[in-house]
Amino acid sequence: EADLVLYDALAHPELLDLCKPGAEKVFVGKRAGKPSERQARINARLVDEAKAGRTVVRLKGGDPGVFGRMGEELAALAEGAIPAEIVPGITAASGAAAAMGMALTDRAHAQQLRFVTAQLCREGGAPDWASLARTDETLVFYMGLAKVEAICHGLREAGLPDDWSIMLISNASLADQQSLLGTLGDMPEKLAENPLPSPCLIVVGGVVRMAEVTRWQEEVAEQAGGALP
Amino acid sequence: EADLVLYDALAHPELLDLCKPGAEKVFVGKRAGKPSERQARINARLVDEAKAGRTVVRLKGGDPGVFGRMGEELAALAEGAIPAEIVPGITAASGAAAAMGMALTDRAHAQQLRFVTAQLCREGGAPDWASLARTDETLVFYMGLAKVEAICHGLREAGLPDDWSIMLISNASLADQQSLLGTLGDMPEKLAENPLPSPCLIVVGGVVRMAEVTRWQEEVAEQAGGALP
Repeated sequence: EADLVLYDALAHPELLDLCKPGAEKVFVGKRAGKPSERQARINARLVDEAKAGRTVVRLKGGDPGVFGRMGEELAALAEGAIPAEIVPGITAASGAAAAMGMALTDRAHAQQLRFVTAQLCREGGAPDWASLARTDETLVFYMGLAKVEAICHGLREAGLPDDWSIMLISNASLADQQSLLGTLGDMPEKLAENPLPSPCLIVVGGVVRMAEVTRWQEEVAEQAGGALP
Repeated sequence: EADLVLYDALAHPELLDLCKPGAEKVFVGKRAGKPSERQARINARLVDEAKAGRTVVRLKGGDPGVFGRMGEELAALAEGAIPAEIVPGITAASGAAAAMGMALTDRAHAQQLRFVTAQLCREGGAPDWASLARTDETLVFYMGLAKVEAICHGLREAGLPDDWSIMLISNASLADQQSLLGTLGDMPEKLAENPLPSPCLIVVGGVVRMAEVTRWQEEVAEQAGGALP
């Protein structure tokens, strides 16, 4: 069991309650400095504490191997000759889709599923919109709330129709979950009228429309008295 | 709690032990008929049993929303006015990567992560190899064991180098996990010499090479006595 837990902002507080009594818990998330410096400090601390004989848990939200810095942390550990074990998690796309009652892929709507980080969409970066604008794929943008307008614009310019479905899900699966449903054409305006908090996941594709139909039918079912106990 | 559990071949047997005493457990996996007929029967049974007042669990392996038939099942339930709740899972890509000690994305090696079903690679189907042959992405092929040669050939023809890394992982995270590491150039031959069982996940990209380095360093660490307790 862990002597030391280094945890991120997205690690759920209830997980910390599972630590053994006396374990030291240290927040190493967003507030702790510039990203690159912070990461270098975390890498060094993982190695140093392990070398000092402590059992260290690096606790993250979602799946640590998807758009985290786990690769860099593993490389630092390997270089320091520190053995490590990875515990996989449910990545935000799976959690958000489940919470919204939708599948990420569907034989009829999406034979591919692509996760994209918003870093690809930053100013000056050149996302390959032509490659992303496919009608047989579900696109999930992580950490993209500030890039919604760029995403909608880029995908439309690259050929996806204005009425192509897009869904935004903030705080997915938590009590304060919020979502917006719209199209590439109207989502920037909808978001301006109903601002959502971070973290927010963006799902684009035919599965979103499928979920709209399913949810409408479920609402009818619930009104007819079929609600879950 | 469930009165009836309809489970697939990839649902772990230990999960069935968690069902309440007296729950009926029915295998509806591969052996139960042709895929399309089987799916129609499952959809109908989900609706019929729920209408008869039973609480039904549809138990799958991995994440139900990734390359399963959950979308079709949700649509059937919605049409039958049956409310449903989705419990997300750890998709095979996350589980396999964790078991192999690697990240699926990495700032230096992969800013995108794409899941592809082998159905795209079937004879007569036309996978868009040019779109898949990217050096900034991790590709994960689900259910692709029979298509390894086509995948290697297609990606090389579309421009990925012969020495681009590919990893095959069978029965990921289970006691009988097996894996093969190679390149697009040599993997078909390696697989012919060392056949792997299904289910097998295929990971292509720079993160595989990264994992090779990490693992080599960890082996050194373990030989140096740093193995996990």
